[in-house]
Amino acid sequence: MAVVPEECLDSIERIIANKKRILQRKEDLFSYAYDASFGIHCPDLVLQPISTEEVVSIVRLANQFKIPLYPRGRGTSLSGGPLPVHGGIVLDFSLWNDKLIVDPDDSVAIVSPGVLTADINAKANEFGFMYPPDPSSAHVSTIGGNLAENSGGPRGLKYGVTKDYVIGLEVVTPEGEVIRTGGRTIKNVTGYDLTKLIVGSEGTLGIITEATLKLIPKPAATKTALILFDDLVDSGRAISRVLSSGILPSKMEIMDQASIIAVENYKPLGLPTDVEAILLLELDGHPYSIEDEMEKVKSVCLSVGGREVIIAKSDEEASDLWQARKLVSPAIVRIKPTKISEDATVPRSKIPDMFKRLKQIKEKYNIHLVVFGHAGDGNLHPNIIADQRDKEEMKRVELAVEEIFKASIELGGTLSGEHGIGNMKSPFIEMELGKEGLDMMKRIKRAWDPNNILNPGKVFPEPGQKLVLSNG
Amino acid sequence: MAVVPEECLDSIERIIANKKRILQRKEDLFSYAYDASFGIHCPDLVLQPISTEEVVSIVRLANQFKIPLYPRGRGTSLSGGPLPVHGGIVLDFSLWNDKLIVDPDDSVAIVSPGVLTADINAKANEFGFMYPPDPSSAHVSTIGGNLAENSGGPRGLKYGVTKDYVIGLEVVTPEGEVIRTGGRTIKNVTGYDLTKLIVGSEGTLGIITEATLKLIPKPAATKTALILFDDLVDSGRAISRVLSSGILPSKMEIMDQASIIAVENYKPLGLPTDVEAILLLELDGHPYSIEDEMEKVKSVCLSVGGREVIIAKSDEEASDLWQARKLVSPAIVRIKPTKISEDATVPRSKIPDMFKRLKQIKEKYNIHLVVFGHAGDGNLHPNIIADQRDKEEMKRVELAVEEIFKASIELGGTLSGEHGIGNMKSPFIEMELGKEGLDMMKRIKRAWDPNNILNPGKVFPEPGQKLVLSNG
Repeated sequence: MAVVPEECLDSIERIIANKKRILQRKEDLFSYAYDASFGIHCPDLVLQPISTEEVVSIVRLANQFKIPLYPRGRGTSLSGGPLPVHGGIVLDFSLWNDKLIVDPDDSVAIVSPGVLTADINAKANEFGFMYPPDPSSAHVSTIGGNLAENSGGPRGLKYGVTKDYVIGLEVVTPEGEVIRTGGRTIKNVTGYDLTKLIVGSEGTLGIITEATLKLIPKPAATKTALILFDDLVDSGRAISRVLSSGILPSKMEIMDQASIIAVENYKPLGLPTDVEAILLLELDGHPYSIEDEMEKVKSVCLSVGGREVIIAKSDEEASDLWQARKLVSPAIVRIKPTKISEDATVPRSKIPDMFKRLKQIKEKYNIHLVVFGHAGDGNLHPNIIADQRDKEEMKRVELAVEEIFKASIELGGTLSGEHGIGNMKSPFIEMELGKEGLDMMKRIKRAWDPNNILNPGKVFPEPGQKLVLSNG
Repeated sequence: MAVVPEECLDSIERIIANKKRILQRKEDLFSYAYDASFGIHCPDLVLQPISTEEVVSIVRLANQFKIPLYPRGRGTSLSGGPLPVHGGIVLDFSLWNDKLIVDPDDSVAIVSPGVLTADINAKANEFGFMYPPDPSSAHVSTIGGNLAENSGGPRGLKYGVTKDYVIGLEVVTPEGEVIRTGGRTIKNVTGYDLTKLIVGSEGTLGIITEATLKLIPKPAATKTALILFDDLVDSGRAISRVLSSGILPSKMEIMDQASIIAVENYKPLGLPTDVEAILLLELDGHPYSIEDEMEKVKSVCLSVGGREVIIAKSDEEASDLWQARKLVSPAIVRIKPTKISEDATVPRSKIPDMFKRLKQIKEKYNIHLVVFGHAGDGNLHPNIIADQRDKEEMKRVELAVEEIFKASIELGGTLSGEHGIGNMKSPFIEMELGKEGLDMMKRIKRAWDPNNILNPGKVFPEPGQKLVLSNG
């Protein structure tokens, strides 16, 4: 475990003039010991930088004293991203939110790391633009955290993920140099793409101090449908058939029967609990075209065995339909207090197979499993509901999670579609990447961060590391 | 200069059983000394691998004997990408085109490196899908070359570039290990994004032996307009105004007066030669919506000073309008035989400034300069027309090119939007990236390719290297 020597603290007080941004009291430190995943790891110190100069000086100091640094936004990570697992200093970027500039002429936004993601989209909307990435935490998570984890969201199907909208970065390297990657142009092939290497590197390759984001014209209208399927496999066929009929929905979410039942028990919306799946689909674009496309969606869904297609006639009706999906998370934590939210992602055609595998895992380990998520891009969210105080149950859950990862990879998928690896999935990463693939990543980490200062203990497995789903 | 020792040749003959794929005759080698840029560099040997196993064995052998390897597609590079500048072995991948699979259920294509890019889109079209990247060389260039250089094209404005469609790769590392990056899923955040690091690394970080490409639904219809502007600055305003009015055209090309005059002299199309700029704009999507959007485009363009908006009433009329843009390249090489095609890219709002700077450069160095390109994304193609045999003129051209690069960077742009750095622009790369930015790239190169086997002499400048625009 790292400790912060007195002499280092003196230097820090010269770097950060305002002592309020240096947190040392036990009760303050403890609130940085958590994120939205598992494990409690108390930092030795928390700093709240608000300038590139401060970050540079802190990083150089950390290298000098070999103290780990853990960049952190608002701590909504589901994979342990910001947890200070080796002790040391947490860098809390949530105060650094002074810059949120939208330039309509270049269709870009320039942002500080602590700006809330939803605020970027709201500001873009004022100019007729949209910032598409929409992780469900967008109203509470910072863009810095989204950049570190390359967050996704329902709109990923049509619009891609965070990375697809980052065209330029200012980054402090692990040894404290400032570099600028990319720029303000959409096209840039000058040298290696460090922008897309750093986005999604979970804070292990650099600290992002400013980002330039690409904005796109905001679609004029949206239209929502809720489709009921007696058979889960039919819903999978509907997804493929819609997408190969020339229509690219902006969202395409699935809820399995367990999710539907959970929602109806929590807040009765009148959803039929005897269907095996519900698809929620949103089209966006020109009002004429989505009207016409929705008719096509309806006939495709009915032709592959859909029981009923309910099309919202107004924005209010649309939000009523989306309520079903939004209530899943609050509904399931009412069943039991501990929710293990996975994001195993499979090729779209393998969704029915994945559902079969999940059913087998559920029965084998006798766990409470509900499945929902971004069906259009194969990014499911199998959620296990358990009680962390029940050690025996948590043991079964750990085994089930490991088998979910295996199933996903055997079906040609990935451990993580949008939550990141952190320290939650690092014990399994070699299963997906192979020894050589992982080695090429380690080479980059070593070449950039020879002292292993930035977010150690993440992405790469540590000797003997295993999945542990218990707090303390 | 590298030579290939006898003992190494023996091993190569064991690796590549078919001797026809081992080229050693001087006249064969000489046809690999060129690409579509400048400089003549004859390789010592050319091999035509058609399997991953062959590539692995060749790369391991090259490491053992420290012989440089230069991957090559069809040699359409405009930046020197495949030129064997340090001697050694060219790996010609153009024969390796056996795999072109479209999987409509997952909306992906799986391809061998030697497949022609246009063939991928054609095959996708059969299933109702589209592979959007459309470099103008698509009918003759291989996907392997496009991946190495991260090629763009007119559709980049709406659809992005090659990298945006690559979700998985099989790669042979510089030391001869096989790794698989990404996969068949659109979302994947497991570890560092090696896929997007390798695409665009110009063959310096690995040899791509298979790629998985994302396909999207093919838009139902397209609509084209040609818009005349008396004033170049107005055309720039039109571009910004169209894009902030909620419309994202699939293409938005500009031609300056010199381009228009060149085309009219070459093949009279009836274009007015007294306008300062022509915009060519294509909308794609649902027929209803593009009809309506085109009306909006028309009124926006007229409101900012457009002289006339000509909207194609049929696909035939649309191709007639596009003829103007397509004829620029053949028209200008009739003026003088040597064409230096740059791809300096600036933020969209800086297009009028860039035009001003280009005009100054043209006058200062008394060169023949025409400007056209992908205006919507700021990716201009300033083309200098000269005669390579005229040493004095070429000296002026070299100075002008350097000043074009400087102008682009001063305006917040980049050296290269879509052609790559190769050995043509490497002397200028530090100007854009800074010493530290370049150093972080070099660290990756050294960590992955300690023997500097893969495409040496590219991307990174060599001591004392200068731009040379003469053949031999």
